[in-house]
Amino acid sequence: MRLSRYFLPLLKETPSEAQIVSHQLMLRAGMIRQEGAGIYAWLPLGFRVLKKIERIVREEQDRAGAVEMLMPTIQQAELWRESGRYDAYGKEMLRIKDRGEREMLYGPTNEEMITEIFRAGIRSYKDLPKLLYHIQWKFRDEIRPRFGVMRGREFLMKDAYSFDFDEAGARRSYNRMFVAYLRTFARMGLTSIPMRAETGPIGGDLSHEFIILADTGESAVYCDRRLLELPVPGADTDFEGDLQPIIDRYTSYYAATDEKHDAAAFEKQIAEADRIAARGIEVGHIFYFGTKYSEPMRAHVTGPDGKERPVEMGSYGVGVSRLAGAIIEAHHDEAGCKWPVPVAPFHVGLVNLKAGDAGTDDACERLYAALEREGVETLYDDTGARPGEKFARMDLIGLPYQLIVGPRGLENGVVEIKRRADGAREELAPEAAAEKLVADIRAALAVA
Amino acid sequence: MRLSRYFLPLLKETPSEAQIVSHQLMLRAGMIRQEGAGIYAWLPLGFRVLKKIERIVREEQDRAGAVEMLMPTIQQAELWRESGRYDAYGKEMLRIKDRGEREMLYGPTNEEMITEIFRAGIRSYKDLPKLLYHIQWKFRDEIRPRFGVMRGREFLMKDAYSFDFDEAGARRSYNRMFVAYLRTFARMGLTSIPMRAETGPIGGDLSHEFIILADTGESAVYCDRRLLELPVPGADTDFEGDLQPIIDRYTSYYAATDEKHDAAAFEKQIAEADRIAARGIEVGHIFYFGTKYSEPMRAHVTGPDGKERPVEMGSYGVGVSRLAGAIIEAHHDEAGCKWPVPVAPFHVGLVNLKAGDAGTDDACERLYAALEREGVETLYDDTGARPGEKFARMDLIGLPYQLIVGPRGLENGVVEIKRRADGAREELAPEAAAEKLVADIRAALAVA
Repeated sequence: MRLSRYFLPLLKETPSEAQIVSHQLMLRAGMIRQEGAGIYAWLPLGFRVLKKIERIVREEQDRAGAVEMLMPTIQQAELWRESGRYDAYGKEMLRIKDRGEREMLYGPTNEEMITEIFRAGIRSYKDLPKLLYHIQWKFRDEIRPRFGVMRGREFLMKDAYSFDFDEAGARRSYNRMFVAYLRTFARMGLTSIPMRAETGPIGGDLSHEFIILADTGESAVYCDRRLLELPVPGADTDFEGDLQPIIDRYTSYYAATDEKHDAAAFEKQIAEADRIAARGIEVGHIFYFGTKYSEPMRAHVTGPDGKERPVEMGSYGVGVSRLAGAIIEAHHDEAGCKWPVPVAPFHVGLVNLKAGDAGTDDACERLYAALEREGVETLYDDTGARPGEKFARMDLIGLPYQLIVGPRGLENGVVEIKRRADGAREELAPEAAAEKLVADIRAALAVA
Repeated sequence: MRLSRYFLPLLKETPSEAQIVSHQLMLRAGMIRQEGAGIYAWLPLGFRVLKKIERIVREEQDRAGAVEMLMPTIQQAELWRESGRYDAYGKEMLRIKDRGEREMLYGPTNEEMITEIFRAGIRSYKDLPKLLYHIQWKFRDEIRPRFGVMRGREFLMKDAYSFDFDEAGARRSYNRMFVAYLRTFARMGLTSIPMRAETGPIGGDLSHEFIILADTGESAVYCDRRLLELPVPGADTDFEGDLQPIIDRYTSYYAATDEKHDAAAFEKQIAEADRIAARGIEVGHIFYFGTKYSEPMRAHVTGPDGKERPVEMGSYGVGVSRLAGAIIEAHHDEAGCKWPVPVAPFHVGLVNLKAGDAGTDDACERLYAALEREGVETLYDDTGARPGEKFARMDLIGLPYQLIVGPRGLENGVVEIKRRADGAREELAPEAAAEKLVADIRAALAVA
């Protein structure tokens, strides 16, 4: 993509309403624009990050055996009356009346709707298990939307729902999502910690939040340092097999959010050097809630004995739009974002230090074509801005690699690669630089 | 995908509320489920079609040089007051109040918001042209939602917006979208006809609807048969070059919707045998409206003379969710859907005629693995249903190819391929059948 054709409206000043670094950087780097309290447009650069996060979430849901579908944003009030949540949900639910005065709402979550869809289509234990998911915009009318996309009102979420005949089956579905979540966040460059959590308005007995550590997190969290070093289950994980040993291993260490924290157990179970008391950001939450919805909504299946019983359910959420902010919280410095390759808006920023100079333009065009041909996503700064402005811009938007091309280097037969993560620089012949970038980026994109 | 793990709730009866064949088939084939008047959930099979349509739209927008972003579904009323459309829009706009009694709305279109985003980021003619698009759910509170996804209330749309310094530039942007639309619909197996149209509430001077012919279409349309035979611009079209000759060629033939129809000209310009008076479905609509929004909303750019002037704009819509229905209207028979390969939910339906028979199961597993390995999307009917039910189901969901495997054929060393489009059947050795399917599907997916 040529920057001259792109739409990248950077802000010079940090907007005063942005309190945390991810919100500041997303605004300054032209990733988002506020269109109302807690409502954002995703400008082209931010949109690319959002899509990459979404793709990783999707790939890992598919790998775990979940089937994708899509429910609408607008729901009927009557559906929520069946479960009893219409009145219980409170003011966070955005309630709407259409032209015929029918009561509707902008879905804050989808347990009721998926239960209705399930009960209309499935009648027998023979058709179980089912594991369905969708990635859709939701709305929660927060009283104080803040922190940009981290706590917006309109937000993108992946939610999955499992349907099993008995608790053992439901536990297997839960385990699939548990492992999928560990993989999902790791692929984005995040170390996530599953923590026993309160089930809140979703309900149920068993629940884990997936938390990443960040100073700006809203939750106080406590865990064992050794949890952070556990190996992430590989792409060769057999999701049809027994995942319980993986879950047991992860849950054998102390880890709890504030509400579940037990100071005595924390101190007893963990050596002092391994105790982590920190702040965290919730990026996923999984629930096993049994028949909480299937019973009142009569989502029944017939068992082998011919008797009907309510289906066992769980639900599994990932905050897709929130993750864009969470990743920045984990990967940035004073100059800007530092995107991990798998979620970077582009892989390489190609910096032409003297646009208009025939030799420099020509070298840049060749490099641009060579990188794009190999699938390396390149943002080519072909504008007439001064070098200092170009460098600051590239640091701010935080592409993993900068490829810097100027007349002086070219005289010596070299261009420069700068790695954003650690600032390491290297001079190479243009062809060698392109080859190195292709190889490094392919390696970083390989799914382990 | 194994059917036993999939969620494909077919309906035995045609629901009485469905008047047109695409609505009937989408319900019967388990593609969609109604969740409110004009509001649908996209079940897994329908979702796959929707995603494929979306991908083709995206690829052709990108090819034409448009840059993707994403605007939110919920908009502020005040934005629409700036353009004067808040009061003018009427009851089709879904108006919402949040918990703070702020007036909001579910966006029926995005001219106001994109104009606001543009004016905040672009100040100079040097930064033009810009061509931005998004693919997002919209809501129009139709008084009579009908025809399933063809005229729903919550619907998915691609809308693009162009920003140019002068009318000549705006015309070039318009031409890019004109050509992109011809390509987009052709890739889905649709012959679209651009027709001069009224601009309606969007406004402006120049507008074309893209219409496909179908008996169930809502518009009466009139055109020259020779238009249907014009070559579609190829993938090698230079969108940076002069596209006017392509547009001139397409617009040199008579073509008009009801409102613009001139019976005298129709009869004068076209030989009787070439006159088509038919019904059509609008699948796209493009507008050049100049400064209709940029003037009241003060989206100004500075010209080379240092003077400010309102930017020249156009907007360009494709009905993404509507297209799923439109494609069925164009491709079906009494037994069900007949999906063109590029938008088919799966490419091949693998039919195991005797699930549980070791030899048949084994042959199916090998074929399934071989097809999936080559990227052929296969729905494997591994269920215990009887052959007649399996055949009817495959015909109903309309995958382009059926690969039928039974013990009798295997004794003779053959399996059967049935092509859904014309019912042609062929017996081949299993390996040869897989190879043929891979080759045929690759050929059908190649982008010309």
